[in-house]
Amino acid sequence: MIIVMKPQADKRDVEHIVHMIEEKGLTAHLSEGSEVTIIGVVGDKSRLSASNLEIASGVDKIIPVTESYKLANRKFHPEPTIVSVGATEIGPNNLTIMSGPCAIESEEQLLATARAVKAAGANILRGGAYKPRTSPYSFQGLEEEGLRYMKTAREETGMAVVCEVTSAKAIEAAVKYVDMLQIGARNMQNFELLKEAGKTGLPVLLKRGLSSTIDEWLNAAEYIIAEGNYNVVLCERGIRTYETATRNTLDLSAVPVIRAKSHLPIIVDPSHATGVRAYVAPLAKAAVAAGADGLMIETHPCPERALSDGPQSLTFDQFQELCTELRPYAALAGRTF
Amino acid sequence: MIIVMKPQADKRDVEHIVHMIEEKGLTAHLSEGSEVTIIGVVGDKSRLSASNLEIASGVDKIIPVTESYKLANRKFHPEPTIVSVGATEIGPNNLTIMSGPCAIESEEQLLATARAVKAAGANILRGGAYKPRTSPYSFQGLEEEGLRYMKTAREETGMAVVCEVTSAKAIEAAVKYVDMLQIGARNMQNFELLKEAGKTGLPVLLKRGLSSTIDEWLNAAEYIIAEGNYNVVLCERGIRTYETATRNTLDLSAVPVIRAKSHLPIIVDPSHATGVRAYVAPLAKAAVAAGADGLMIETHPCPERALSDGPQSLTFDQFQELCTELRPYAALAGRTF
Amino acid sequence: MIIVMKPQADKRDVEHIVHMIEEKGLTAHLSEGSEVTIIGVVGDKSRLSASNLEIASGVDKIIPVTESYKLANRKFHPEPTIVSVGATEIGPNNLTIMSGPCAIESEEQLLATARAVKAAGANILRGGAYKPRTSPYSFQGLEEEGLRYMKTAREETGMAVVCEVTSAKAIEAAVKYVDMLQIGARNMQNFELLKEAGKTGLPVLLKRGLSSTIDEWLNAAEYIIAEGNYNVVLCERGIRTYETATRNTLDLSAVPVIRAKSHLPIIVDPSHATGVRAYVAPLAKAAVAAGADGLMIETHPCPERALSDGPQSLTFDQFQELCTELRPYAALAGRTF
Amino acid sequence: MIIVMKPQADKRDVEHIVHMIEEKGLTAHLSEGSEVTIIGVVGDKSRLSASNLEIASGVDKIIPVTESYKLANRKFHPEPTIVSVGATEIGPNNLTIMSGPCAIESEEQLLATARAVKAAGANILRGGAYKPRTSPYSFQGLEEEGLRYMKTAREETGMAVVCEVTSAKAIEAAVKYVDMLQIGARNMQNFELLKEAGKTGLPVLLKRGLSSTIDEWLNAAEYIIAEGNYNVVLCERGIRTYETATRNTLDLSAVPVIRAKSHLPIIVDPSHATGVRAYVAPLAKAAVAAGADGLMIETHPCPERALSDGPQSLTFDQFQELCTELRPYAALAGRTF
Repeated sequence: MIIVMKPQADKRDVEHIVHMIEEKGLTAHLSEGSEVTIIGVVGDKSRLSASNLEIASGVDKIIPVTESYKLANRKFHPEPTIVSVGATEIGPNNLTIMSGPCAIESEEQLLATARAVKAAGANILRGGAYKPRTSPYSFQGLEEEGLRYMKTAREETGMAVVCEVTSAKAIEAAVKYVDMLQIGARNMQNFELLKEAGKTGLPVLLKRGLSSTIDEWLNAAEYIIAEGNYNVVLCERGIRTYETATRNTLDLSAVPVIRAKSHLPIIVDPSHATGVRAYVAPLAKAAVAAGADGLMIETHPCPERALSDGPQSLTFDQFQELCTELRPYAALAGRTF
Repeated sequence: MIIVMKPQADKRDVEHIVHMIEEKGLTAHLSEGSEVTIIGVVGDKSRLSASNLEIASGVDKIIPVTESYKLANRKFHPEPTIVSVGATEIGPNNLTIMSGPCAIESEEQLLATARAVKAAGANILRGGAYKPRTSPYSFQGLEEEGLRYMKTAREETGMAVVCEVTSAKAIEAAVKYVDMLQIGARNMQNFELLKEAGKTGLPVLLKRGLSSTIDEWLNAAEYIIAEGNYNVVLCERGIRTYETATRNTLDLSAVPVIRAKSHLPIIVDPSHATGVRAYVAPLAKAAVAAGADGLMIETHPCPERALSDGPQSLTFDQFQELCTELRPYAALAGRTF
Repeated sequence: MIIVMKPQADKRDVEHIVHMIEEKGLTAHLSEGSEVTIIGVVGDKSRLSASNLEIASGVDKIIPVTESYKLANRKFHPEPTIVSVGATEIGPNNLTIMSGPCAIESEEQLLATARAVKAAGANILRGGAYKPRTSPYSFQGLEEEGLRYMKTAREETGMAVVCEVTSAKAIEAAVKYVDMLQIGARNMQNFELLKEAGKTGLPVLLKRGLSSTIDEWLNAAEYIIAEGNYNVVLCERGIRTYETATRNTLDLSAVPVIRAKSHLPIIVDPSHATGVRAYVAPLAKAAVAAGADGLMIETHPCPERALSDGPQSLTFDQFQELCTELRPYAALAGRTF
Repeated sequence: MIIVMKPQADKRDVEHIVHMIEEKGLTAHLSEGSEVTIIGVVGDKSRLSASNLEIASGVDKIIPVTESYKLANRKFHPEPTIVSVGATEIGPNNLTIMSGPCAIESEEQLLATARAVKAAGANILRGGAYKPRTSPYSFQGLEEEGLRYMKTAREETGMAVVCEVTSAKAIEAAVKYVDMLQIGARNMQNFELLKEAGKTGLPVLLKRGLSSTIDEWLNAAEYIIAEGNYNVVLCERGIRTYETATRNTLDLSAVPVIRAKSHLPIIVDPSHATGVRAYVAPLAKAAVAAGADGLMIETHPCPERALSDGPQSLTFDQFQELCTELRPYAALAGRTF
């Protein structure tokens, strides 16, 4: 941590800061420049409440030097983490494809989709049983009934299944039926939910918040890992910007940035990011080329009649075609698919 | 709802859409232009899953015409709602000041603050017992112990008290101690929490999400009201933008916009919005001038030693001075303070 | 400037950096922490190309400590600058009101507006002769003919006049007719235009760019001042965000932030910021309460028939009423109006 | 264009609007719903000043239905445009690589770079002679001297050359030396510059503005094409968001969106978008996978000593390696490279 003093700060201001640092058992390094003095702090900064030094007399600003996430940080864990979900290993050797409907609507819909996406090459079945919807009047999901269909689909196809959870109660139900819990974008900073998900020990798919920085996202992952659960897979799904041509703005730079900053796997969801079916395939290929460990793609037997997110869902034929197109990209990236 | 067809859409495409509309018992109005055909839909649109028409053949885009929130909408409820919290009426006649520390740290700290802010003119005591923090290693709040101190402060000073809740469990605890529940920015779209808060019947202070549109915010309020609880007060606390000179960007336009779109009271929190103590007073005055029904201002006996958000907290003297400065602005706005 | 080394940087990396710093005649201060080493640079940093140290071996990141703008910086010029435009002094003692139509449409329209806004209390007449429009098919302005009408309006009413310039050619024409040049939001980083405007010696109204940070804005002002022209007035007019309820998001925090960082006057344009007539008055009052030195308000004899920005323009009666309402706010702020 | 009336609009309000539409020779279509009346306008909307209808009595909002750009619009020009620059054809059949230094520093630097990037496979040499820099104290470019070096490089290597222009004067100079003009992000809405560039007839590389929507970008292209010059190549270079891990946020969705909305070629600049060398290669591959017609990549003989943008520049070896890695991606995309 670095403390930058104001030009007009006097000797007593600097001494006061140095005193505050040293009384916490830390060391202060002074650099007196022609314009300003800066003070470097060495030692365990968690003992010092950084933000409040900002209002001590003579202080211009505080600049943090090291990241607040430790367990999710590549600096202290250079090897990539591989997360096992059922028979699938999510990590640098494979391209993992999660696919299924945005919302589970019926057993038939889910089973038909599971069979189709498995045949095309998907490894994990996704499906929403608890739907966080902007309006209370939109379809809210089948809840536990939907989870039961997921289990049936798993038994029939042998695919692992992932389902979003939106409350402690939903987690309690989901652990009985699914292989992986999903924390959605709107709940990325629902810290109580993160802790509960961490405690289950199940793999967690952590979607990036609508307007979360990458640092906040890794701090959210830290909440899960801090419960002793390293099985976290990150999912980039678009961030909120001023652009309206797509539902969100897919931030593919997040893939190499996460690779540089963390050891956790990262997958990409071009369906939610764009909200437009025609943009899913080009961005799915781009994600693989950028180094993603996997993809999440929405599919539906009849997108025109879907209860949620129809416009971005692929038909089974479109999904099959996309998987075929993705294979050479996976091969170029050195991944099995 | 309006459906805009593509220039190349043919007669059969249009007929297909009209058929889909009419089979739901709705009426379709056609306008055939030189470039494109548009179809207006008349009737209860909730019967029609709007989004999926978007992928029917020949459809260019769907444009919603009416808002999805109804109970929070001024169009159907033109009179301003007045929310009673203890002896305070939040609404057009008063300027309501909520003040207190970001985090409750001890009984002494809270009581000292309660006495000071009451003396200066505050109506409601705020204080965080459950703190949603970006990093799991930051101070997370005193939880129920903090709530007990709030109750003590209420008993001693007679002020009503408001406290943030971050989970169903926290709500269960808080209802025993506080007069008003606060839903924080990070939980604005934690829909399960909104429903739980709505069910308590207690007044709810609903902060705007970090990057929520005003429409999403009013839809979040709709979740609470849909549980039969009209006692919702909105709180603008800054939105996320690219600008870094302030912690968030205070969107004061939200005050007249909410006034135009909703009947719910709106207050402004310049402390969290700016994150800088020196900017709190000018923006507090600006909020009152813009028409806000109240303010939320952080205060602390010794901001330099606060466990959370010290740099934006006012000392008791500064808060007293601000209240004195605010009185003529409240008078100009026709509000009692 | 501070250089943060990577945890794995070795002694030779650090020595290489120190060598690069010292060969430029600067001094390096080392702080060796438990996790990382940081190096402070003391001396005239312009000799060192900061950005490239970033790719030297072992470097994690470079953190600038001081602002790149000097002449616009309050640190080196603590007294507020007062800018004279005709008989008006823009600065801390007055509330300056600039008003007029978005686009000059005819001599009659401009003269009628000039008379009306002067009678209501405006000090400076605004009007666009060169209109930067998103589409080439929108009305582009009357150009020099419009400037001539401005001069006529000045002669008849005695008001000073301000007009936007969009090219070196437009500046050449404008200097013959107007008292103040306006650089619009879209040209805030048109550095050639800034230099040309600076060279005229005329006062310059510098609007904030659509998505400019406050630091970029002050650097743009620095381009003008660096030509020897300190007569710069800043104008906050809303920034681009994801919110669509208003045309832009008015960033009123910019008023106290500019006050803290610069000595230049700052005015606020609620008309362009919101794009909605009903929101102009509440935000105009809020701007004065936040400490703005003035306002820019669009007015039109018949907004319904305006060629540009009708929806945000006030009628003469509305403008008159707003001025009346603003007087007590100006008085509270200690300003003559 | 669609006009949505307020619920409380009465018959006279609707008649007034219909009258305004019909007096311009257009046709009005009414849909009277249970809640609101909507009015569709058919005919040449440019006769109607859309925005001002918004303030007529009873009007809630105006919704545009068709895009304001026509010449750049794929709807009216379905075949992809191929832009010839020297011997290179930018369009669907090739992958065009533009490379060179951010700023031209010396003849040696430019020639060495030209030779190296040509050998690796680049088709067009880029180099900045006029540099728009945030601070007036940063290196501003060699201007015409730099252009002369570009011409020498062209003569020696046979590569076509592209150079940014920042003023009418710079265009006048550049047309004597270069094959293609570049309009930078900061000048995307410098409409006078767009018109001047259009008039030269030279191919124009139009970078997306820092916070431009795709619609604004295509409208900027429309300014160039409206001068009779269809030789426009778009360049996505990252947009401004709240995320700070990269300099800008590369919006790769823009590639399929532009493909859907326009016939113009689009290339991608991962160097400026990320500002970090390590992220250039993964995003370059992703851009090709997403369907880009080309790439712009910064290279420098010695990035550590570059006068501008060193941290994002590739060394010659890195560029050579990237080109080798890109070849199979170009092949998968059906492009010659």
